[in-house]
Amino acid sequence: MTAQKITITSAEVIDLRVPTSDAMLGSDPFHKMPDYSSAVLHLETDGGLRGVSVVFTVGAGTDWICHGINDLCQLIIGTTLEDFATAPVHLYRRLIDHHQLRWLHDGVFRMAAGAVINAMWDLWAKSLDKPLWKLLVDLEPEFVADCIDWRNISDALTRDEAIAMLQDRRANVGKRELEMSELGPKAYCTAGWLGLTNDQILATIRKLQDQGFDSFKLKVGQDSQRDVERIQFMRDAIGPDCNLMVDANQYWGVEEAKRHVEAYRSFGLKWVEEPIARDDVLGYIELASTFADADFGFACGEHAASPVIFKQLLKSGAIKYCQIDAVRVAGVNDVMAIILMAAKYGVPVCPHGGGIALCNMIQHYGMWDQIAVAGHSDTQLVEYIDFLQEAVESPVATKAGCYVTPSAPGWGLEFLSAFVGKHRFPDGEIWNTRAGSRKGAAFEA
Amino acid sequence: MTAQKITITSAEVIDLRVPTSDAMLGSDPFHKMPDYSSAVLHLETDGGLRGVSVVFTVGAGTDWICHGINDLCQLIIGTTLEDFATAPVHLYRRLIDHHQLRWLHDGVFRMAAGAVINAMWDLWAKSLDKPLWKLLVDLEPEFVADCIDWRNISDALTRDEAIAMLQDRRANVGKRELEMSELGPKAYCTAGWLGLTNDQILATIRKLQDQGFDSFKLKVGQDSQRDVERIQFMRDAIGPDCNLMVDANQYWGVEEAKRHVEAYRSFGLKWVEEPIARDDVLGYIELASTFADADFGFACGEHAASPVIFKQLLKSGAIKYCQIDAVRVAGVNDVMAIILMAAKYGVPVCPHGGGIALCNMIQHYGMWDQIAVAGHSDTQLVEYIDFLQEAVESPVATKAGCYVTPSAPGWGLEFLSAFVGKHRFPDGEIWNTRAGSRKGAAFEA
Repeated sequence: MTAQKITITSAEVIDLRVPTSDAMLGSDPFHKMPDYSSAVLHLETDGGLRGVSVVFTVGAGTDWICHGINDLCQLIIGTTLEDFATAPVHLYRRLIDHHQLRWLHDGVFRMAAGAVINAMWDLWAKSLDKPLWKLLVDLEPEFVADCIDWRNISDALTRDEAIAMLQDRRANVGKRELEMSELGPKAYCTAGWLGLTNDQILATIRKLQDQGFDSFKLKVGQDSQRDVERIQFMRDAIGPDCNLMVDANQYWGVEEAKRHVEAYRSFGLKWVEEPIARDDVLGYIELASTFADADFGFACGEHAASPVIFKQLLKSGAIKYCQIDAVRVAGVNDVMAIILMAAKYGVPVCPHGGGIALCNMIQHYGMWDQIAVAGHSDTQLVEYIDFLQEAVESPVATKAGCYVTPSAPGWGLEFLSAFVGKHRFPDGEIWNTRAGSRKGAAFEA
Repeated sequence: MTAQKITITSAEVIDLRVPTSDAMLGSDPFHKMPDYSSAVLHLETDGGLRGVSVVFTVGAGTDWICHGINDLCQLIIGTTLEDFATAPVHLYRRLIDHHQLRWLHDGVFRMAAGAVINAMWDLWAKSLDKPLWKLLVDLEPEFVADCIDWRNISDALTRDEAIAMLQDRRANVGKRELEMSELGPKAYCTAGWLGLTNDQILATIRKLQDQGFDSFKLKVGQDSQRDVERIQFMRDAIGPDCNLMVDANQYWGVEEAKRHVEAYRSFGLKWVEEPIARDDVLGYIELASTFADADFGFACGEHAASPVIFKQLLKSGAIKYCQIDAVRVAGVNDVMAIILMAAKYGVPVCPHGGGIALCNMIQHYGMWDQIAVAGHSDTQLVEYIDFLQEAVESPVATKAGCYVTPSAPGWGLEFLSAFVGKHRFPDGEIWNTRAGSRKGAAFEA
């Protein structure tokens, strides 16, 4: 796929924060008062197109990521889209293996690198007037394989295996694309937020059911007895045939998780999400073994900081659902590697959504996975939260419990400029009128 | 141990960079041209004392960590040493579990949090006029246990086990302290840097032997045949009784590591360091199993980003040497947890040194481990590099192949102000006279 010779001329990085903690939206046991936020990157070019990406955060710390993105952008201003699109792994390595910056590891560094990489993919897709998923679907198997850094993962999946797998799906890609031309991946929603009463949860479920959803999640990680009561309440409310999942947001240690989860055996749960720390691979293996005969499997990944962590979770069979995040690892290149590994090990890709604009991004990965990698839609659920969509030009939509297939070019991630102006931190009007204690890191629950 | 009521009044964060890449010092396969650097934190107080800590980096990216430290310092200005010393885990949790910042994970965030925590420990030790190791040795077992966040590690070591272990060593602490009152931990050095010729390596070895060293390390990760020749050269040069270790700096994938390391069986190596990625726990387990009958064991940890990674490496028996770093995890509190876990699993603590001022810090951990936790000096080697010691007021010294027991209060980490002035980035005279291409992230190997 040829790319035009478009040069990156400048970068703007915006610290965008929404005071969602005012209404206690999206809280969990650790993130008690999140202010849904985003480090937004605009790569401006001489071709009139803009490459856009976002890194979702929960408030304080967005500036850390903005600082990093600004630094990395020194490395791409003056480069061309053609350079990038010829071999995207070159930019990936220039950033992730930068001989000095690589000392900074995962977390802020990998997320900032992902922002730059994702903005370049956005620009490429826009230059072809394709949504991102369509660009990915149209890539040749060898090209996809060449986007990936195989150094640390080829004990789980080799380049040749990846190519063979993609080739194998190739015959059906046209058919799958047609099948998904209107309705995209099946979606699920969190109905049981920690802050909600039973009545509020019930109202949320009914509203979602009216919209066609049949898969629901509940937050746990409080008092065990109360958690179990809430699971029972949710199961009663949705009936035996709907999917029910629970999410502990890493709240427990391994032994503690065993005790809590033991009480969850009788509710026909689909998965138990993030029972323990994001990087505790052996802990996940131990839990999987302890609950090998349970109905549910374990799910995680939204906080897994690198493809190496995913490799271990997938290869060992520790997780039964692979929850990629769109902005935690180093962009499209890393996520491609993870989706391919999940396919080899037969683990459904169930991306993490929510926050600001995560759903707008993950729908593309769901499409690529279900058309070209897994090649089916039989087992995956893609998270969906109807939240802050009024902030973007191309809101995510659902129909009959599925994502409506995205059609805007690139990620479709352009924020409305009025929204950006208002929520820019700390000078937008939402923030500059607040007292100091409601700002930044100093604001503590 | 009571602490005075000293209030933190301000924080200064300095981006200090030394152009070590001019002479290709400290290079490895990934970090081809490191500029040894440090984010230096000075916590000023109303008591005339200053809390100091450093975060070592290799050049570009130091500003990312400085940005983070500055942000976190908002949370401690106005707090007192007394608050901290009453229960150090409170500050640890305020930072690491900050309900918004925790989203940033390990890497930059954990390192910045470690800087703040380490500066507070420095201040506490200085207020008692004790070197840091002595403060740690004098803490009651219960107090040590209360410094630790047990949430994610108690499946490997419980609070009660830690206390019992420390209590058990208590009877011999006086004796051990006396034994180590002049000579501290046994040290080892890297003699075989990648850039050096055989003659240069030989000269380095002879110089180190004259100083009493008998343990040497060699960098590998280039052409396999050449690596093996260099190992043979080193072994011939030092004879059969000296310790010889090799370090691959994470250069290989798992299968690749197996092939390379297979050729290392006949040289009586003590350890093979960082053959694979820093977070590949299952890879280490596989290597340990493949080479279970070899003379050598595997070593890693300088890039292990959290106590949870260490927990898995130790509990599984995957590593035989635990290479704590002083600034990669969240300061004294995290390192205490790791050293205690290593003691339970009988894995010698062999800290990672070098860079700027790492040796100045790790000597304290070696002392604490060998006096109060392992309670012996039979198996540990602490890395030592005679480098940039002219930059600090209390240089590290060695004698007869051991660290000379540090006696300066706190970490003993005060940089000479002239050195700081010259190396401040980008405005110090070392940097402001250089062309742009030798500065920051734009400078690429």
